[in-house]
Amino acid sequence: MTADRTPTSSPVPTPSSPAPDIVRCASMELVVTDLAASREFYVDVLGLTVTEEDEEAIYLRTLEEFIHHNLVLRQGPVAAVAAFSYRVRTPEDLDKAVAFYSELGCRVERREDGFVKGIGDSVRVQDPLGFPYEFFHAVEHVERLAWRYDLYTPGALVRLDHFNQVTPDVPKAVRHYQDLGFRVTEDIQDSDGVVYAAWMRRKPTVHDTAATGGDGPRMHHVAFATHEKHNILAVCDKLGALRRSDAIERGPGRHGVSNAFYLYLRDPDGHRVEIYTQDYYTGDPDNPVVTWDVHDNQRRDWWGNPVVPSWYTDASLVLDLDGEPRPVVARTDASEMAVTIGADGFSYTRKDDAEGTSDHEQGEYKLGNQL
Amino acid sequence: MTADRTPTSSPVPTPSSPAPDIVRCASMELVVTDLAASREFYVDVLGLTVTEEDEEAIYLRTLEEFIHHNLVLRQGPVAAVAAFSYRVRTPEDLDKAVAFYSELGCRVERREDGFVKGIGDSVRVQDPLGFPYEFFHAVEHVERLAWRYDLYTPGALVRLDHFNQVTPDVPKAVRHYQDLGFRVTEDIQDSDGVVYAAWMRRKPTVHDTAATGGDGPRMHHVAFATHEKHNILAVCDKLGALRRSDAIERGPGRHGVSNAFYLYLRDPDGHRVEIYTQDYYTGDPDNPVVTWDVHDNQRRDWWGNPVVPSWYTDASLVLDLDGEPRPVVARTDASEMAVTIGADGFSYTRKDDAEGTSDHEQGEYKLGNQL
Amino acid sequence: MTADRTPTSSPVPTPSSPAPDIVRCASMELVVTDLAASREFYVDVLGLTVTEEDEEAIYLRTLEEFIHHNLVLRQGPVAAVAAFSYRVRTPEDLDKAVAFYSELGCRVERREDGFVKGIGDSVRVQDPLGFPYEFFHAVEHVERLAWRYDLYTPGALVRLDHFNQVTPDVPKAVRHYQDLGFRVTEDIQDSDGVVYAAWMRRKPTVHDTAATGGDGPRMHHVAFATHEKHNILAVCDKLGALRRSDAIERGPGRHGVSNAFYLYLRDPDGHRVEIYTQDYYTGDPDNPVVTWDVHDNQRRDWWGNPVVPSWYTDASLVLDLDGEPRPVVARTDASEMAVTIGADGFSYTRKDDAEGTSDHEQGEYKLGNQL
Amino acid sequence: MTADRTPTSSPVPTPSSPAPDIVRCASMELVVTDLAASREFYVDVLGLTVTEEDEEAIYLRTLEEFIHHNLVLRQGPVAAVAAFSYRVRTPEDLDKAVAFYSELGCRVERREDGFVKGIGDSVRVQDPLGFPYEFFHAVEHVERLAWRYDLYTPGALVRLDHFNQVTPDVPKAVRHYQDLGFRVTEDIQDSDGVVYAAWMRRKPTVHDTAATGGDGPRMHHVAFATHEKHNILAVCDKLGALRRSDAIERGPGRHGVSNAFYLYLRDPDGHRVEIYTQDYYTGDPDNPVVTWDVHDNQRRDWWGNPVVPSWYTDASLVLDLDGEPRPVVARTDASEMAVTIGADGFSYTRKDDAEGTSDHEQGEYKLGNQL
Repeated sequence: MTADRTPTSSPVPTPSSPAPDIVRCASMELVVTDLAASREFYVDVLGLTVTEEDEEAIYLRTLEEFIHHNLVLRQGPVAAVAAFSYRVRTPEDLDKAVAFYSELGCRVERREDGFVKGIGDSVRVQDPLGFPYEFFHAVEHVERLAWRYDLYTPGALVRLDHFNQVTPDVPKAVRHYQDLGFRVTEDIQDSDGVVYAAWMRRKPTVHDTAATGGDGPRMHHVAFATHEKHNILAVCDKLGALRRSDAIERGPGRHGVSNAFYLYLRDPDGHRVEIYTQDYYTGDPDNPVVTWDVHDNQRRDWWGNPVVPSWYTDASLVLDLDGEPRPVVARTDASEMAVTIGADGFSYTRKDDAEGTSDHEQGEYKLGNQL
Repeated sequence: MTADRTPTSSPVPTPSSPAPDIVRCASMELVVTDLAASREFYVDVLGLTVTEEDEEAIYLRTLEEFIHHNLVLRQGPVAAVAAFSYRVRTPEDLDKAVAFYSELGCRVERREDGFVKGIGDSVRVQDPLGFPYEFFHAVEHVERLAWRYDLYTPGALVRLDHFNQVTPDVPKAVRHYQDLGFRVTEDIQDSDGVVYAAWMRRKPTVHDTAATGGDGPRMHHVAFATHEKHNILAVCDKLGALRRSDAIERGPGRHGVSNAFYLYLRDPDGHRVEIYTQDYYTGDPDNPVVTWDVHDNQRRDWWGNPVVPSWYTDASLVLDLDGEPRPVVARTDASEMAVTIGADGFSYTRKDDAEGTSDHEQGEYKLGNQL
Repeated sequence: MTADRTPTSSPVPTPSSPAPDIVRCASMELVVTDLAASREFYVDVLGLTVTEEDEEAIYLRTLEEFIHHNLVLRQGPVAAVAAFSYRVRTPEDLDKAVAFYSELGCRVERREDGFVKGIGDSVRVQDPLGFPYEFFHAVEHVERLAWRYDLYTPGALVRLDHFNQVTPDVPKAVRHYQDLGFRVTEDIQDSDGVVYAAWMRRKPTVHDTAATGGDGPRMHHVAFATHEKHNILAVCDKLGALRRSDAIERGPGRHGVSNAFYLYLRDPDGHRVEIYTQDYYTGDPDNPVVTWDVHDNQRRDWWGNPVVPSWYTDASLVLDLDGEPRPVVARTDASEMAVTIGADGFSYTRKDDAEGTSDHEQGEYKLGNQL
Repeated sequence: MTADRTPTSSPVPTPSSPAPDIVRCASMELVVTDLAASREFYVDVLGLTVTEEDEEAIYLRTLEEFIHHNLVLRQGPVAAVAAFSYRVRTPEDLDKAVAFYSELGCRVERREDGFVKGIGDSVRVQDPLGFPYEFFHAVEHVERLAWRYDLYTPGALVRLDHFNQVTPDVPKAVRHYQDLGFRVTEDIQDSDGVVYAAWMRRKPTVHDTAATGGDGPRMHHVAFATHEKHNILAVCDKLGALRRSDAIERGPGRHGVSNAFYLYLRDPDGHRVEIYTQDYYTGDPDNPVVTWDVHDNQRRDWWGNPVVPSWYTDASLVLDLDGEPRPVVARTDASEMAVTIGADGFSYTRKDDAEGTSDHEQGEYKLGNQL
């Protein structure tokens, strides 16, 4: 059943060429408008380790990473995402990536020396949904700092966990990423079958990437993992101490979807960064897909705390292969924010209580968003 | 300096009789309208231990408590607080309590057998601010369950930490409670000297009780302590699993005031319960008083997360010694909610950014309360 | 490099038949001599969930598991392990398993209805190293209790993490399990190339199973994962409260190997159970293998706390397919205990300090084992 | 009952002069033989904050402290303790201290400018048990760093919690410290009434100091508190990363006595430092005293893990008021180590199992100390 393809009325064609064997989401390249400010945020505040840097770019990694980097910050004129980068299993998977996307008529660029430092032979494409995807295998190994507890901070980030992409047509995106080898682990739907978001994985966690319904292509967030929940609380405490608490956009809280503990931050350019911990193993072939009702008030926050509107509306531009921002296409399906927040929205904590109840009435103590 | 009396234009007279020597806040008696529903909340959900119960009342305690109870739930017609109960150092302190309040012209009632099970000779008064205060020394000892880890739940509550009282005139309240022997540890003021809230202690934590400015006398909350922050998160997770997340009113979060980690719940009658951990030692005679600016957006939540309006507006009635609800007097001083939330309010994250900035502008990612 | 086969002087032949595609270690069947006592240990103390039980067997699972069980307790005359059970990717992998082991001349038994409740078509073999291995794909799905925080205990076990097998010839075992598709992630060696232990994985954690050098075939331990370290401490606290602290054999502590936080318990039959959390992602094809020096005092415990001798010497018998205990063959290579503990042993905390230093001299404050 | 004096056959006389009103243990002055090595240990490894330093001494404090320091490291020829320093409630309590000890015939020295930087008028005495006790009230206030989460490390130390003193005659010591105003909270005895150790408090925690039976006067340890248990584990992890795990003498573990989570380290001079968290409130006048049986295997470690011999035998010298080490007097009462560890010792996990059982037999998996 999980191997079934998601139905969609406007599918991207399924290539006859086999998909590259993606191991995991591995790195993101972010364009930032003030490299020094971004360095302060990611290095001084969040504690990522600098593998290498020059005047134009900083290559960062988490404590358990052994490849050269899992975040690149590059100075540029417009804040945007230059690449969602995935590691593939073998060098030959790059040939497969070229064939797969070429068959789809996508623009494909390959550089034997890589697009960024520390990474070898790489393929970048503008995928059928408009996202700049990158694939690589060859990479420079660096010290895995997992045992270097002398370097840990209270909010230590240990892994890059996932990406999240905003796209107008979620089923179309899911179907395409299934063609690329991803499996759905969870999604949000309504009783009419409208899909508001879906989570998809290669490595056996809840996701390597997710599709969030909205105007796109845009990048919703990039997520780094900590070991424990207190590490995430420590990030908040430090931001408070630095009088930068307004960088906290949403959370901390417990997700319904993924069951993970989360926090959303906004970097100096507004790029959204999630800090995330403790989802669950999904590696079995028949791992049960969890479908959440869009009106379930605990789907996004298990504790029923409100999602702030900016979390639904804001996202980062993505670049094409020439480095130009991709135009954004509006979502035409129902919006999750519209159907769940505010005067027109509807959500419930207990399904049986839902009849005729707006969230004005049922969530009597959480009126922050109705003032 | 901390021994100085808070100035107030409308002081309660300072009795010539010495105040009783209060050891700590020790117990609260809550009137609830559905004893079974309250039992489910406090016992099944929060995990308090039943020391004793009958058809009219349930006597509960936390895991580290060795006196008979620190919470009494009593069935009654109107949800309210029947007693804020303090333990005094010696039996003779009850005589002092009688003299102290009698001199103030307060109604005083003394029962040698106590007002509730498990507690001996007790004095109840209607204090000058309208609150039902109780004092006792003699108490039945029960097993301190601190070592009984077989009984611990993930959200285990270990101590009663403090009360919080809503009163229209905070300086008047503070001055009176200083007369009763309390010391101020922190407060919230504005640059005009308006005092919005103050925290006061007998035991060397941040407080045994606090005065919150608002229509009163009412009870804002009663707080229980956990050992660690994850215990508080576990309470939220469990409420989500039970589909009772709407019992979560505010938090979890880090307080600015007190530096403690917190969560606010509402019980089936709307009584507010805080779960609280990790404030700091305040027992030195010259413990520095921390004064927060009412416009400091991190005073109530160190992470700048918004305070929901109900937290400012809702509170529990208190009873007089005849068991009748006390009439509520409106606050005439500025309201903290009015000066900080919404279209008219003003708060800042960085003081230097504050000039001409409303929270609409500065807190760009936390617009949940402006929808 | 990690794809290279470990050299061994006495290899099990590599079959020409392809190995079954193992997804993960999935379940262990333990024979216990007092089912009621074992139930108390695993259910009442450790909090595993009973999926199903009868007079002869109890089927248990962790909170995040969605297959029928990951531990079977079966009443029997001799405490032993009846099966190390792995899930394979497809039903066809069972045919591969039959062919793979048949080619090796191993005894193979297949039951279309499975050997235990809740599991369908299964293959059991007595593998070339003498271990009872089981493979299955078809399984009954049950509720994944991950979101059921109302059922969590302070020491909640969420996943089966790994097995650990005692075998006299570690390189021989590693080479054979590499043939079966496992990859080495870490090992312990000395400067002469003697291999004392190796960790091998299918799912991308540090291991699904490990080979520990010693008299075998025996089962060293089965490990369950918690979310956080405090959950493991809670298991210890509860055992203390129940006056069963002598079930704690070793730990809690931080492993050098795997970097995980650990605790070793002994069940009522002496079967060793590890509670384990927070190793690292190993799923990349070139994941760096970590080799530890057997004399490194932090390899087994990162804090240098001594390994108790029983941990080296005790292990559980394993059964053949007739249910008879397999005879145990003595290890002839050097023993890790002999080379590191006690009067003859040698270990160091700082390699440069090691010259001429026995652990008597260097570990001056940890003399517990020299009394 | 807790106000009763401990019986002793060799009491120090009870002065007629009233005891000074001690608020809490406040600071220790340690003489170290290599100031740079000690600085590295306390500042770089443990993360204490330097308030002030010069070539001869370093003044350190924990994150929640607001007085000038709570640890002084002073360069000297012999590692020892120069002062156990207590804060008193008022300046007049110094006069009381002078009178109290003068009446006992103790050597008393008073310096209006204090003995160390940051502290004013102070009294130092050589107390009747041979310990260098200091009392002060006036002190320089410094920033309480509690909210400075940008300065926190994973193992952040927040308070000085207590001292621990080794003395040959525990009842004599307890009786004397009761005269000084301390209250016993817990102790360890045998069925013959031999007292092996006692815990005594002024502030309402389990102790400000403790008397441990052994050759004395010596200092057993000084303890600093963290907020949570993971902070203590982080200290261990960091010591491992720095290849200084041999500084870990005992633990981490859960105490039976005090119910706190603990770790014992040894500094470069061998001074023992405890890291400690989560004991319980003891401030009520009738706080129940907990008496542990010396043969209860869970009294020192709730998980039954063995106490290493060095923890019983090693301790720091203390200085007299001339700065000379005090001679050590041997304990003549039974030694806790002798009665509980090794071939002659006896301890039990379950009292009913105890009959005729040595720890060889009952603790079958914890034989580390019998090799």
